[in-house]
Amino acid sequence: MKKIVLLTLISGVAMSFNLFATTQKLLAKKEQVTNLQWVDPFIGTGGDGHTFPGAVVPFGMMQLSPDTDTVMRGVDPQPEIYKRCAGYHYDDHTIVGFSHTHFSGTGHSDLGDLLIMPMVDQVLIEPGTAADPDSGYRSRFSHDQEWASPGYYGVELLDSNIKAELTTTERAGMHQYTFRKGEEAHIILDLTTAIYNFENKVIWSDIRKINDHTLVAYRATNGWANNRQMYFAIEFSQPIDSYEFINLDDNRYRCMGCLGKEKHSTIENKQVKEAAGKAIKFVASFNNPTAKPIKVKVALSAVSKSNALENLKAEIPDWNFAHVRKQAEQKWDGYLSKFEAQGTTAQKRQFYTSLYHALQAPSIYQDVNGEYRGIDGEIHQGKDHIHYTLFSLWDTYRALHPLLTYIAPDRVGDMVQSMLDHYQQSYDKMLPIWSFHGHETWTMIGYHAVSVIADAYLKGIRNFDTKLALEAVLATSNSPIYDAINEYKEFGYVPMDVLPESVSITLEYAYDDFTIARLLEAMGKPNDAKAYFQRAMSYKNVFDHSVGYMRGRDSKGNWDPEFNPEEAKYMGPFTEGNSNQYTFYVPHDVKGLIDLIGGDKKFEQRLDALFDTHLSDEMIKEHEDIAGLIGNYAHGNEPSHHIAYLYNYAGKPWRTQERIRQIMDTLSSDKPDGLAGNDDVGQMSAWYIFSAMGFYPVAPGDLSYAFGAPQLPSIALNLSNGNVFKVEANKLSHSNKYIKSAKLNGQVLKLSFITHQQIMAGGTLLFEMSDKPNKQWGEANADRPPSLSN
Amino acid sequence: MKKIVLLTLISGVAMSFNLFATTQKLLAKKEQVTNLQWVDPFIGTGGDGHTFPGAVVPFGMMQLSPDTDTVMRGVDPQPEIYKRCAGYHYDDHTIVGFSHTHFSGTGHSDLGDLLIMPMVDQVLIEPGTAADPDSGYRSRFSHDQEWASPGYYGVELLDSNIKAELTTTERAGMHQYTFRKGEEAHIILDLTTAIYNFENKVIWSDIRKINDHTLVAYRATNGWANNRQMYFAIEFSQPIDSYEFINLDDNRYRCMGCLGKEKHSTIENKQVKEAAGKAIKFVASFNNPTAKPIKVKVALSAVSKSNALENLKAEIPDWNFAHVRKQAEQKWDGYLSKFEAQGTTAQKRQFYTSLYHALQAPSIYQDVNGEYRGIDGEIHQGKDHIHYTLFSLWDTYRALHPLLTYIAPDRVGDMVQSMLDHYQQSYDKMLPIWSFHGHETWTMIGYHAVSVIADAYLKGIRNFDTKLALEAVLATSNSPIYDAINEYKEFGYVPMDVLPESVSITLEYAYDDFTIARLLEAMGKPNDAKAYFQRAMSYKNVFDHSVGYMRGRDSKGNWDPEFNPEEAKYMGPFTEGNSNQYTFYVPHDVKGLIDLIGGDKKFEQRLDALFDTHLSDEMIKEHEDIAGLIGNYAHGNEPSHHIAYLYNYAGKPWRTQERIRQIMDTLSSDKPDGLAGNDDVGQMSAWYIFSAMGFYPVAPGDLSYAFGAPQLPSIALNLSNGNVFKVEANKLSHSNKYIKSAKLNGQVLKLSFITHQQIMAGGTLLFEMSDKPNKQWGEANADRPPSLSN
Repeated sequence: MKKIVLLTLISGVAMSFNLFATTQKLLAKKEQVTNLQWVDPFIGTGGDGHTFPGAVVPFGMMQLSPDTDTVMRGVDPQPEIYKRCAGYHYDDHTIVGFSHTHFSGTGHSDLGDLLIMPMVDQVLIEPGTAADPDSGYRSRFSHDQEWASPGYYGVELLDSNIKAELTTTERAGMHQYTFRKGEEAHIILDLTTAIYNFENKVIWSDIRKINDHTLVAYRATNGWANNRQMYFAIEFSQPIDSYEFINLDDNRYRCMGCLGKEKHSTIENKQVKEAAGKAIKFVASFNNPTAKPIKVKVALSAVSKSNALENLKAEIPDWNFAHVRKQAEQKWDGYLSKFEAQGTTAQKRQFYTSLYHALQAPSIYQDVNGEYRGIDGEIHQGKDHIHYTLFSLWDTYRALHPLLTYIAPDRVGDMVQSMLDHYQQSYDKMLPIWSFHGHETWTMIGYHAVSVIADAYLKGIRNFDTKLALEAVLATSNSPIYDAINEYKEFGYVPMDVLPESVSITLEYAYDDFTIARLLEAMGKPNDAKAYFQRAMSYKNVFDHSVGYMRGRDSKGNWDPEFNPEEAKYMGPFTEGNSNQYTFYVPHDVKGLIDLIGGDKKFEQRLDALFDTHLSDEMIKEHEDIAGLIGNYAHGNEPSHHIAYLYNYAGKPWRTQERIRQIMDTLSSDKPDGLAGNDDVGQMSAWYIFSAMGFYPVAPGDLSYAFGAPQLPSIALNLSNGNVFKVEANKLSHSNKYIKSAKLNGQVLKLSFITHQQIMAGGTLLFEMSDKPNKQWGEANADRPPSLSN
Repeated sequence: MKKIVLLTLISGVAMSFNLFATTQKLLAKKEQVTNLQWVDPFIGTGGDGHTFPGAVVPFGMMQLSPDTDTVMRGVDPQPEIYKRCAGYHYDDHTIVGFSHTHFSGTGHSDLGDLLIMPMVDQVLIEPGTAADPDSGYRSRFSHDQEWASPGYYGVELLDSNIKAELTTTERAGMHQYTFRKGEEAHIILDLTTAIYNFENKVIWSDIRKINDHTLVAYRATNGWANNRQMYFAIEFSQPIDSYEFINLDDNRYRCMGCLGKEKHSTIENKQVKEAAGKAIKFVASFNNPTAKPIKVKVALSAVSKSNALENLKAEIPDWNFAHVRKQAEQKWDGYLSKFEAQGTTAQKRQFYTSLYHALQAPSIYQDVNGEYRGIDGEIHQGKDHIHYTLFSLWDTYRALHPLLTYIAPDRVGDMVQSMLDHYQQSYDKMLPIWSFHGHETWTMIGYHAVSVIADAYLKGIRNFDTKLALEAVLATSNSPIYDAINEYKEFGYVPMDVLPESVSITLEYAYDDFTIARLLEAMGKPNDAKAYFQRAMSYKNVFDHSVGYMRGRDSKGNWDPEFNPEEAKYMGPFTEGNSNQYTFYVPHDVKGLIDLIGGDKKFEQRLDALFDTHLSDEMIKEHEDIAGLIGNYAHGNEPSHHIAYLYNYAGKPWRTQERIRQIMDTLSSDKPDGLAGNDDVGQMSAWYIFSAMGFYPVAPGDLSYAFGAPQLPSIALNLSNGNVFKVEANKLSHSNKYIKSAKLNGQVLKLSFITHQQIMAGGTLLFEMSDKPNKQWGEANADRPPSLSN
């Protein structure tokens, strides 16, 4: 807190020296009530949150952030690489440098493009090790002299006494390095480092100095995305006084017919200011660095160097760091003001930081001239929409995408259209599964793009090609080449002898099919809808009545003989989970599931057992993703996210209320390690936002929300239609965690559900809270939605 | 000969079965007098000619040709790699496969993209060795069952009993494989092989099956051109019955956080019909292969897969191999009919094969939709001209480009415009030096693009941006970053302590500056011209009067103390040559050079000494390019090409006549090893064509030609202006090699020179030949051009 307040002051001072200052002074009053102050980008950078603390704007292509330990060229993979999926970990004590692309909260990773690091006097071209930072260009740092806020990151590099500051626009970033000592400043541009690096990750790179202060560069890497191409435009605020190109590529081309000579009967043009190869670095040197800060602007493009230059010119035309920062803050402020939340400082820090993390992706993947690189590797012209990338759909269809329909509805249509771009440009004629930067990773399961599309369409968002959307949804859900859709359709389930993770896949296909049925219904195609509602019942085919669990089943109909409901076996029938968890994965027909399990009481007991039965490490030893445990409930991973809400469907909303508070109290905080597991590109954060308001989209596409309990005394949501939807929680306290009663705009709510339409109509959802459960309220959830069995 | 006649018949038979046949029959009479029959693509495939025998159309982007020994992945570079710059060498006995890009006659190499080879029954995925062809998919072959003619190549693969045939369009090629045995045919697409291959040459590749008979592929290689990108569209004439993707990339991406597992907590989509990595192959299999030939169409693009598909569809829409071949032959026939030559079969074979080799490059480097990849790596749209690549300018400015102004004048303007594209897109703001496929190799010396531009402009070719051309010529010749132009301007020569090859560079800059002066003159800028005429005199600054030779000189003015006029020292003051040769490199002021050397007599003695003094291997041990020796004269390399003509300037044309015949008799033949050295993308062939006609452009840009002696009894050149320029040599014979007299259109020629204007005016240049030299004729070459000293 103190740090952030201080920064606001510093920023204000800086602003008064520039042309922008007048406007800013007029805005000063408004700034005092900004929610920027509650965002702490360090939340999630500890533990396994995997968020990054650096500078970014909402949905920005540029994520400019410090890396504390990337794996370097020629160094063996570190055992702790998972810890640094976002490049930075709060536990670390050294900063390697600042790179320009980062995932927020993923469990697997890539990126970390173009690392930049300033030095004084001595030139070091290798980063050195964390154990011996003096062996390279990395520097020690301290969290006491480190500051992060939306659109800004700053740190004192203790070894060199340089203050490094970062800010960004959508496609460009600015570094500002303030030197306090030294005769000569050196700034290294290192094209060899990467996040989730490994030997030979860099396929090719080049860098070229095009005038005395500008460079362009290119790098293709083979990582999670193969042959991922990124172009860079780099500009320094003052002419480079001297420079060095470094080529450490030991496999670089040598003429073989030249009798041992490197060149073929000519003179290499050594004056060409370029280096190309697999291990390229560049060092720019500046005299008299203490005279004024040295700034570096960097713009990205996935298309070309000329586009990177164009992006740079368009987005950061001058050298006013404070102005760029202010613009970034205004962009953040616009989104952060969607909510007006009351609560303790810790609550507001958690809430607004969650909102901040929910606005990271899908991210823009298009140049200012409209060009982008498609999934086919080709350059396309986006005509009437912004093209987005980074669809971590297995995670984000659950709560993030539903949340975006409220807080960034203007972008949702373009995000859908971007998935349709993917569909059209995909040789496989598939919507994205887990895609980023023009690459389908095929990570995780299901075809949850259909859920995102159905949810948007059903909520009335139609600024995308709806006809193409229907085509894409049908083609994807019937793809002959994807995983085991053929067998799913043939057997009514995915046989475990056909594919691992067969039960999870069956269950998730079934849910996805429910959303397609809902979409078809809404599009006026009831017959087609019926067939998909039928497919959505497939979950019943992997429920083994003899044990009362979802269970692997082979193509002959035999149940998995090695079945153990606690075991999360790698390449077993479940995806990052066990049967205890996945048996609850029927979000679209909870009533049907309750019937299968044997009624409300049995269902409630099974939910209790899930939360109360300790899950031994032995059972999950191969899954680093299964984290944030309460018994078998794993809050750190997505298959559990809806489960606490399921008590509602058994007429026991007060039990959900207990569980949500239990999760809030034990598995989240406003500290760096405050996330119970990977934020997963905002899904964990979206869970927090909905849950803090008191409800959650158990089955997106249904448009109903099941109640938990409000966690903050008041949260108002400013809707895009001009309405305000406010949740008030009277008498909310540590002990008053139960809902005594609920009223929507004065009308008593008898059931513990609310609909999208009710939210959009605005008004106040007023909860009376109590320290005792109201066990009668919601007990008769007879019409509890959603249900295919109704 | 017999082979080619037979082929014409086969082709005729094939044609009668298609729609095209009627037209062809009408053309049949004309076909009987076609010059196609005289072209033998095998000439130059032996010795060090470095030409390829495969199928190509004039200036085609696609060069589809057999490779007899490329160096494979994981195999050590072969000592004889220089021998196989064109992929094929006549000495070899096995064919590895057929690849789609080849240089014609270069001394260094690259390319060999996408190797395709058919097999029967047994699938082999490695090529095996020449010593043990059965160890891989390669096959033995015999020249007795091998056929090549313009636009066609065929061979019997003896191990598999498959007849392989190839033909092409500009951007696409067709393979036709006739199987005579076997249950199953296999066709491997190998993305790991390359010409001038070496470990890690393949940066990245991928291949994808997009339907049952079509694939698209990509490959980036690091060779002479770094990160050279090529895209492929591949279509089979029948559906693939089964297939295999092969990924031998042992460095391919493995998830490092996945506890030893390859994939991260999900199932890789194995059904995606794609492979990507650094060592990718694909095998297509077909049942019942003897039923009908299996054909494969392949199109190239340097821009994208979609462009490759578009090129394929546009250029080879159907499966009519004979039709594609016939089209290719018609294109060749159009160019080959530019000349009507009489002579012995061997002479006509040499002459028309030279013409064939002179029409290989610069080659088209642009897709049918106009897009091409520029020197900046970016995609550009060619609006009003065809974009060409492959500017081997140090070689080709001498005779090839001057020749093209007569035989392909319609293309010359576009070639110049392509060099201007290069200039505009070059970060270095330079015209090409030695460029191909969007890459400047900086190979060889000088800035000879200016010579090509000046020669074209002076000859009245103006269909390019002449204003931009002037800008480019001036910028290039004053480039602050290229080699040693700065020092050249400062000292009047390139000091040997600044750059190796300093004398050669000085001399060639001086010549180039002469052509710029000529251009400026023609553009009406006499003052600017004067300055360049002055620069053109710089050759005098490296002439050491004390020894009478061009000699290395340092920046203090001291002469090279290790001077030896015979020594061709690697990284010494001369480029692929010695002072004996380079002292004659003042093509633009031979009179001035004669004065330096001490008058006509001394000059003649020095020329004689050049030809008559044996050059020991010791002196040239490091230069594989210095070949085709007569004494110190190296016909196999370009610095010598003009030297035999210099006797003219000393009033001794009869000595030139003797030397030309000596060179013709001893250093060229119509056999595979008939070229005395690398054809160098047509330069050697252009030398032959001019020399066979009896004259040669000693100093392009001057527009004068010095006489040698006609070598064929009659050669008529059909000019683009409708005129015919005919050279007749009365009484020419083995002994009658001397010119007794010469008449142009009945007017006696007293000097042994002719001008471009005289050629373009058409008419007959009639030589009377004799077995005795006419020592008086041309003795008084007082006004011998060109001369700066006049």
